[in-house]
Order: sequence, then structure tokens, then C-alpha cells
Amino acid sequence: MPTLRELGEDALVARLIAHLPSGPEVIAGPGDDCAVLASPDPARWSLLKTDCVVEGVHFFPGTEGERVGWKALCRCVSDIAAMGGVPESALVTLVAPPDREAGEIEAWFRGLARAAREHGISIVGGETSAPARGQETALLSVSLTGWVERDRCVLRSGARPGDGVLVTGVLGGTLAGHHLDFRPRLEEARWLVEHHLPSAMMDLSDGLARDLPRLAASSRAGFVADTALLPRRPGCDVAAALGDGEDYELLFCLAEERIAPLIESWRERFPGTPLIQVGRIVADEGRRLFEDRSGECARIPEGWGHFSG
Amino acid sequence: MPTLRELGEDALVARLIAHLPSGPEVIAGPGDDCAVLASPDPARWSLLKTDCVVEGVHFFPGTEGERVGWKALCRCVSDIAAMGGVPESALVTLVAPPDREAGEIEAWFRGLARAAREHGISIVGGETSAPARGQETALLSVSLTGWVERDRCVLRSGARPGDGVLVTGVLGGTLAGHHLDFRPRLEEARWLVEHHLPSAMMDLSDGLARDLPRLAASSRAGFVADTALLPRRPGCDVAAALGDGEDYELLFCLAEERIAPLIESWRERFPGTPLIQVGRIVADEGRRLFEDRSGECARIPEGWGHFSG
Repeated sequence: MPTLRELGEDALVARLIAHLPSGPEVIAGPGDDCAVLASPDPARWSLLKTDCVVEGVHFFPGTEGERVGWKALCRCVSDIAAMGGVPESALVTLVAPPDREAGEIEAWFRGLARAAREHGISIVGGETSAPARGQETALLSVSLTGWVERDRCVLRSGARPGDGVLVTGVLGGTLAGHHLDFRPRLEEARWLVEHHLPSAMMDLSDGLARDLPRLAASSRAGFVADTALLPRRPGCDVAAALGDGEDYELLFCLAEERIAPLIESWRERFPGTPLIQVGRIVADEGRRLFEDRSGECARIPEGWGHFSG
Repeated sequence: MPTLRELGEDALVARLIAHLPSGPEVIAGPGDDCAVLASPDPARWSLLKTDCVVEGVHFFPGTEGERVGWKALCRCVSDIAAMGGVPESALVTLVAPPDREAGEIEAWFRGLARAAREHGISIVGGETSAPARGQETALLSVSLTGWVERDRCVLRSGARPGDGVLVTGVLGGTLAGHHLDFRPRLEEARWLVEHHLPSAMMDLSDGLARDLPRLAASSRAGFVADTALLPRRPGCDVAAALGDGEDYELLFCLAEERIAPLIESWRERFPGTPLIQVGRIVADEGRRLFEDRSGECARIPEGWGHFSG
């Protein structure tokens, strides 16, 4: 019997979701940034997302409490954005040992509240528990609902051969602070789906080296990307831009001929935010190539995963 | 600065929810069994619930995996039932150490899938994480959506002085197995809201001694209950029936004159399931009295809470 470490996160998830029940209301289940569900409003779909931040995994002990709460909710907001959607209501689960100072946990919730206000979200309920006696685990688990117009919803699976692959912002070096303070690309994503509907989109949470192959696999396609083109945070090398993860930027695809007009109007609308084409989608599903024209990166890092520690 | 243990769960939650943002779509926020939200369908409200099971807290290490998963989802189903609602879609978060056997976690998910199929629920997404290095924490956190007709939704806050207080099933002794194998009172609750709409309802998760005062407080009322009337699981004393918790039975209120007809039709509809009046609601909010006519119970136990360990 393998352990979770031996199996790895992706193989574990594939096993766990293989036999889960799913009704006719499910438009997209596990495997996209959010679940997509039919709603009573025929013009809209409902979105559901859950994500957690675990102390010692997603943030270090001693991190300023408000940033912990901000991150916990904004990770889910980033996933709603990646569908082209609008966030709505959140539930929060707290697990913390009984000897933890209440003031620290209150700071977590101030950060949650600030992120919720910022994005028009109501926090409508939750749950609290201690871990088992003697365990020091502290975490916040957030579930977030949202909605998206049916004709603006963007899945991971819609990329077509020939589409360009684009990335917002700069990548890498997230542990210097970005992973705690990032602003989810909600406004940018809504603008995109209104004006330049991407064929596929996801948010970059585990690093481009891991997330782009996922998007391509969902679309039953391959890709060629050029590491020399990667938008890098100052001080970051190619390996960091590919593998650090937690960028919370948008990764999306668009038909080649629509890219130049997009980039032009993007620069007007979001002048402070880079938008860069880093590659293209190809038909051959087996082709997953980060061409190292940068000459910097002998081996493509695999990006960030759980259960490997 | 107090610790979570010093503050206690109820006081902590009161502090945490004091400043959370809440929009006009929120019919009922934190403090009821579920959050209740306006939906695009004017005849229905949406329900949202999250709950978690933590190894060493909600189940013992070595518990048969399928029962862990069953419990994790059914706790949420019980809360949807307590609003008079119908469950719909679930998200599941898994936290487990990397050296855990994958087979055990797969058994958890078989239990989740069985509970989902049994209650017509789609499992539409989730999240996996390890705890911090060296920590043994393993848990399942479930979020569940549902819906209820506006005119059948039952809150905790609607009890009126003079209402009888009723309990389904038998109480106490849950650790012998009931807490892992219980069937949420979904069918019973739907029948109740269709035929004998209660004025207030909740599910018994922390024990009658703790939950009845909560229901009364939500309704700005008091109560008088008679411990001699408590429906007890065979072998359980009054203290166990009041304080063990995890009964997952329905606790509800109904105008006195409607109780006899209810009990008569209940016996026909659910012949195997006790339904017993254990007390009544009184106007005096300060009156929270478990009269010990049983003569068994010198001190009313406080029921089960987190952070007290």
C-alpha cells in the first residue's frame, strides 16, 4: 500500500475523485479552478471553491495575522476570477490548538474581513475545532461561492492548437511577501471575459511549470513555451519564475490573431500590469516543451506540490 | 491576552464573527445551523454549511475509514435537515500527513461517496494539503450547499413562549458507534416542514444541555425541560443524554395545541423513531431550567465544546 508521499498529490487526487457521485447540475466538477453548477437563473452558473492555508505549509509561524486571513480568502477569490466569475459568500473553518492566543486568531479574522469587504464578499458562517491533543496544527479553510454568466465562463479545457499562451504580472519570488499580500486578478479577469473572452484560463498557484501542463492536459493539447519570455519578478531567475508557485496570476489562452489587439487595449486599461505571451498551444498532446532560450535553466523545476515533504 | 482555552469556544466565536461583512443577500448568517441566502429563485433560499472531522477529536485513530467519510458529510447533511432543506453540492478538504497510507484516505472518500449517493449530493471539488512537517493532524472538512422553500425554512430563532420542545430519537451514548453511523434526519425534517412546520429547529450536535439554551437564546426566550422525560439510549443515564453530544437528532418547537396531532401522525409515518416532548419555551429569557425530576442528575453537564481540552 503506497503512502501519500509515494503516490504524490496528483495521483492521489485522481484516485480520490474517480468514484464521487455527480448529478446533472454539475457543469464542471473536480479538475478546474472552481466547480461550475447550473443555477435557478438560466443565464448564470454557480461557482464553488474551497482552499486552505496551513501554518508551516502555506505560511510560516509568526506571520502577521491579518496577512494570513487575507491570503486564506484571496486564494479562493483568485480561483473564482480564473473562471471569469464574481465571488459572493464565504464559509470559514478554523482549526487551532487551545493554547493559542485568541488575539492572533482575531487578527486572522480581521484579515479575512478585509479581504471580504475588498471583494464584495459576505462571510456567512464557519466552524471551529482544536486539533488532536498535543498537535500544533493551525489552519484556515475557506469555501467560497460565486457566479458567472454562462457565456463568460472560462474553463481550463477550451484551449485550441494555435492559441497563444499569456500570463499576467511577474512570476517567482513569492515568498518575499507576494504570497501573503497578492491582489487576486478579479478586475482583470472580469474585463478579459467581457472584452477578449479567453479560450481557457486558470490561476497560477503551483508554478507555470506545473500549471501550464495541467491546462494543456485539460484541453487535450500540448504546448511550447519559451523560458526567455517569462515575466520575472526582479531578482528571480527562470527556475524561480517557473517553479516557485503562489503567483496568483492569470494564465490564459487566446486565438493568435486576437492577441495584438488584446495587448494594446490591456496596456491602456491596466498600464501597471504586464501581460506577456510566453508560448502557444500545439495539437500534439505529448508535446510539453519549455524551450530554454534563456540558456539559464538546465532542468525545468517541477513546481510545488503537497505530500512531497 | 487570553488563550482559546481560557476564552472558550462560544466567546471566541462571538468575537470572531463580530466584524464580518454581510450583504443584503444574507437572510441568516453565523449562529444558525446553516447560513441562509437569497437565491435567483424567489421561491427558494440557498443554504450553506461547513463542518469538519478531526482525527483524535471527532473520531479516534484507527476508525474504519468509510465511517469517517460518512460522518464527515452526514454532519453537514444534518444541519441542512435542521433548516428543513435539501442538500445539493459538496466540497471536501483533506489534510493528512505524507506518511499516511493512501488506502486509508481512499476509504474516507468511499464513505463520503456513499453518504453523498444516499442523500442525492454531488461532490464537486476539494483541496488536499499536508499538515506542517512533523505534525500528525488528519482531517476532513466538508462544505455543503442546499436549498429550502422560503415558506418552509425553519430558523433557531422562531420559538415562542408556550411552544413545546420536542426531540427525535434517543440521546446519549453516541461514542458506542452512533456518532459514526447516524442517519441524518433529512426525511423526517422534510416531512415536518411540509406537514407540521416547527417554529424553531436545530440539530443536536453538542448535547441538549448546550444546544437547547442556544435555541432559546436565539429565540430570546427561556425554557423549562424535565430530565425525567428525556429519551435515552439504552444504558445511558440522564447526564449522558444531556451532555454526550453528537446525537444528530432534531430539536424543535411547536405550538402546544399542535403537538398531539403531530405525534399521532409521526407515529404512523415514522413508527420506529421516538418523538418526545421534553419541555416548553417560556417568556423569561433568564430561565433556563432542566428540572431534575429524574432525581438522577445532581449537576447538569455542560455538553461538549472545543478548546476545553
